[in-house]
Amino acid sequence: MAGKSQADIEEGLAFTPKFGVDGLITAVVTDAKSGDVLMVGHMNEEALRKTIASGEAWYYSRSRKALWKKGETSGHVQRVRELRVDCDQDALWLKVEQQGAGACHTGRRSCFYRVVPLGKSGAALEFRDAEKHFDPAKVYK
Amino acid sequence: MAGKSQADIEEGLAFTPKFGVDGLITAVVTDAKSGDVLMVGHMNEEALRKTIASGEAWYYSRSRKALWKKGETSGHVQRVRELRVDCDQDALWLKVEQQGAGACHTGRRSCFYRVVPLGKSGAALEFRDAEKHFDPAKVYK
Repeated sequence: MAGKSQADIEEGLAFTPKFGVDGLITAVVTDAKSGDVLMVGHMNEEALRKTIASGEAWYYSRSRKALWKKGETSGHVQRVRELRVDCDQDALWLKVEQQGAGACHTGRRSCFYRVVPLGKSGAALEFRDAEKHFDPAKVYK
Repeated sequence: MAGKSQADIEEGLAFTPKFGVDGLITAVVTDAKSGDVLMVGHMNEEALRKTIASGEAWYYSRSRKALWKKGETSGHVQRVRELRVDCDQDALWLKVEQQGAGACHTGRRSCFYRVVPLGKSGAALEFRDAEKHFDPAKVYK
């Protein structure tokens, strides 16, 4: 970001994504139809380049320390309908057409299938929209 | 997370948010009505506790290294309608009722007001939904 002023970053037309010290940028993924948040992923420079070039979502797995194409194993590919960047260019928003049964490796459509109750600390989570649409044991080997 | 199995974390009802090495957890914020992503914020343990207790969004500013209540200066408070946690409990999703003109410090409703064109690398960003709804110079001192 050397030489880039705050005004350049926020009001300019140059795409200068700001990767963290770990080399990653946060990517929020929503369903292009329902608007629901499906997942939060992370991209390194290569994953972002492949996503832009192919129009399909690639990420970097922090646990596996590897580049991966979403749906590579499961077939649940994400076609990117729109990609946006935020004001300070350190977060991305992908509106996707989710192929197959779901985005979450647990078998759900979205990774966000539990609600944290408000107003009381330490309360139990509540399942919401938590139906499993595929059997992870069958899809992942 | 000591003693917590992957099954506990993913299928359990205990809320055990996983903060990063920087002590922060990513929070995706959407407009409860439109479903649009308004911003991506970060919470430390205290910000999360205050958000759950008050039903209004608190964050931790990485640049200012300080806890802050959204809307403290601008009046653009976020009333949390629903709080969700993802499968591995390292990301949060807040559906909020955004008070005032917008969530972004640049004066826009959302921080995601620019599109990254797909299919061509190095293309210029395109403004989208980029109307300014308030004057930052007036709102922030």
